[in-house]
Amino acid sequence: MTAPLDVSETELVLLTDLYQLTMTQAYWKEAMAERATFSLFFRRLPPTRRFMLACGQQHAATLITRLRFGEAQLAQLAATGLFEAAFLDWLGEWRFSGDIWTLPEGTPVFADEPLLEVEAPIAEAQLLESLVMNLVQLETLLASKAVRLVIAARGRPVVDFGLRRMHGVDAALRGVRAYRTAGLEGTSNVLGGLRHDLPLRGTMAHSYILAHDDEAEAFAAFARYYPNTTLLVDTHDTLAGVDQVIALLEAHPERRLGAIRLDSGDLGDLAKEARRRLDAAGHREVKIIASSGLDEYQIAELVAEGAPIDGFGVGTQLGVSADAPVIDLAYKLVAYAGRPRVKHSPGKVNLPGPKQVYRRRDDDGRLIGDTLARRDETGLEGEPLLVPLVKDGRVDGDLVALADTARERVAASLAALPGTLKRLDPRGDDEEEYPVALSPGLERLRREVG
Amino acid sequence: MTAPLDVSETELVLLTDLYQLTMTQAYWKEAMAERATFSLFFRRLPPTRRFMLACGQQHAATLITRLRFGEAQLAQLAATGLFEAAFLDWLGEWRFSGDIWTLPEGTPVFADEPLLEVEAPIAEAQLLESLVMNLVQLETLLASKAVRLVIAARGRPVVDFGLRRMHGVDAALRGVRAYRTAGLEGTSNVLGGLRHDLPLRGTMAHSYILAHDDEAEAFAAFARYYPNTTLLVDTHDTLAGVDQVIALLEAHPERRLGAIRLDSGDLGDLAKEARRRLDAAGHREVKIIASSGLDEYQIAELVAEGAPIDGFGVGTQLGVSADAPVIDLAYKLVAYAGRPRVKHSPGKVNLPGPKQVYRRRDDDGRLIGDTLARRDETGLEGEPLLVPLVKDGRVDGDLVALADTARERVAASLAALPGTLKRLDPRGDDEEEYPVALSPGLERLRREVG
Repeated sequence: MTAPLDVSETELVLLTDLYQLTMTQAYWKEAMAERATFSLFFRRLPPTRRFMLACGQQHAATLITRLRFGEAQLAQLAATGLFEAAFLDWLGEWRFSGDIWTLPEGTPVFADEPLLEVEAPIAEAQLLESLVMNLVQLETLLASKAVRLVIAARGRPVVDFGLRRMHGVDAALRGVRAYRTAGLEGTSNVLGGLRHDLPLRGTMAHSYILAHDDEAEAFAAFARYYPNTTLLVDTHDTLAGVDQVIALLEAHPERRLGAIRLDSGDLGDLAKEARRRLDAAGHREVKIIASSGLDEYQIAELVAEGAPIDGFGVGTQLGVSADAPVIDLAYKLVAYAGRPRVKHSPGKVNLPGPKQVYRRRDDDGRLIGDTLARRDETGLEGEPLLVPLVKDGRVDGDLVALADTARERVAASLAALPGTLKRLDPRGDDEEEYPVALSPGLERLRREVG
Repeated sequence: MTAPLDVSETELVLLTDLYQLTMTQAYWKEAMAERATFSLFFRRLPPTRRFMLACGQQHAATLITRLRFGEAQLAQLAATGLFEAAFLDWLGEWRFSGDIWTLPEGTPVFADEPLLEVEAPIAEAQLLESLVMNLVQLETLLASKAVRLVIAARGRPVVDFGLRRMHGVDAALRGVRAYRTAGLEGTSNVLGGLRHDLPLRGTMAHSYILAHDDEAEAFAAFARYYPNTTLLVDTHDTLAGVDQVIALLEAHPERRLGAIRLDSGDLGDLAKEARRRLDAAGHREVKIIASSGLDEYQIAELVAEGAPIDGFGVGTQLGVSADAPVIDLAYKLVAYAGRPRVKHSPGKVNLPGPKQVYRRRDDDGRLIGDTLARRDETGLEGEPLLVPLVKDGRVDGDLVALADTARERVAASLAALPGTLKRLDPRGDDEEEYPVALSPGLERLRREVG
């Protein structure tokens, strides 16, 4: 009845759509071994996003270099009856041999800009489609939501409380990686935080209070065991809970408390009164943390009204990127055998060929627009964003460090983003989009191939 | 830079919020070892759901019985500085010793009804909260979305194409388990289908066509390698693609084709004309499959207009339950040390004590309402739904088989659900909710404790 939750590296290669394997075999049988380029991009921003934060693409690219088919996987494929023995032998020997270009993680990205491009013999590049899309979408979605919370909180720390709402185990783990990149300060998720190096944070739950005969007793025990902890004050009545905390600190002047947490009611009003009572009792050092189904709009409102809240815990809205739980990512063949290719879709622009993105800045370093160009085009203004991370199937060692700087990149990007891109409300019809122009070379190619 | 994607059974125990571990240690230090009951339920249905299909709770319960802390996990906890050596020794010996009652998987469930209840010494039951919520939410969300597609398709097969849009690896795997329970016919997801016993289905992608110099050549190769395959006809022009398929079958009368797939345009009109052309050419046996960002509303419309579509492939909208990507699940302490407990929340009803759900049917077997009762209450009308799956930390062998019948249970449930619950549109304000009444005993207890 039960199946394990773990996925070994050799199993991961089967996390693909069946047609990737049947098409791969067909290419192999037809001896179609020329190099192809596939480009990973999205066609439009979700209505509630003004930019996305590209995340997970360097993680995915390095995982790709470790993919291989084990004996068990080959036996499972053989049992489907769809695959020839000689092809399965070929799969058994297969290692990714191509190149992967990526945006550095933490780069703001807009419609039509590649997050990642794979260049490899077509069978290899095709094989990766489903896995790459699955891996990159998750981290990009969650980083893009998390950075909105960071923007809304204007410097106050935001902590992830969302493990329980996330879609399964892998989302809960790689999500923490995305949150770290986006600038969250901590997470309640133990395994996620340990794996992805984000500080662990925790308070207490209502159940702990309820299991005790009274709140004061529960507070006293928890504060004794955990110096500098956070006490949850709203189980029965928030302000009565604050008074209990004050009484506890009066009774035990040697105790140090980090914060109280408000988890229901009018957080702004309650924070003001709690602050007043704590200050009046001489406990200015005790901080106030708020949670309670918060999203970026509520955080911005609390900050704007001057609520004395020192940090925010966010769960449900963050953990599934609830207002935009999916991006319409596409992984499209754009070149094969040296020739740009493109699918003609009514109402959709498909841009042929391998690409580069040039990001232009004004004298103050602020972004003013991007140019989407052919990869082989020269003489364009701006900083080329896509970097070669994997070459001939191997991760270029010097480039691995790029991912470690993703968090710093996000902080710098936020400073350089035009103010309109940092607004939280959806873009109005009368507001201009961030300009992404086609280079002369790409425009020409689009006309020729299109 | 990269972290593995696999999670071992001993790591899984750390997939929890930090406060579960600190509260557990606090209970341990206080010698609070009495039994507690925690109840897993949701407070309200998402606006676009008339019922949820409970899924994953039996899977989660059996995983719980296998949880343990390994040396590596204890060392990681020790390094946080929050835990005493004697407590870590206790964790190292810890095995779940309690009882778990669950709804059978595939049971339609409504607001306030427990999907699962844990009864154990309080530290143990507390420890499980985050993991249980994460595990059960995912499968319940996805099964509840998938069953709407099954309802919309009115007997036509629905196949999962959503791997690329799902939130990471675990979602993509356990999602297939939920889809199977809900009644989908197949999946494109190879590892998911193999692990959870749902037939693999696959067609071909636009990239395969584009990599060939012409569509006819691509069709001919793919049909030669894969008898009874499905050819994707919309890369350049859907009806021209249909004509290519017909020409291919004329040229090779020995070939057998399973279906064509339409993936863009007006699917209803295109299906009618494609059917007409195929039939006129004598290929009544070639089926028509549709995909293209479909959801349950579009499927219902295509079925209602009589579109000659034999099956549907669904991805984006299914894979994240896009219209309801989260349920507000709660895991609440309802009893401790033999006493019912409850948190008082303005505007929320919290029901104390361990529970049972009685489901009442009319003479035709159709559901007419549920009664939410105290677990120890007797003499109530209807079928008691919660079953004891884990007893003293061990899965009751006779009960494991329950989960294997989940798919059959869903099919039977669909037949027995009142018609209004199977409507796809959101419930109107003037429509009655499915009646869930409180038993006299529970009503009395709520007044006493509330």
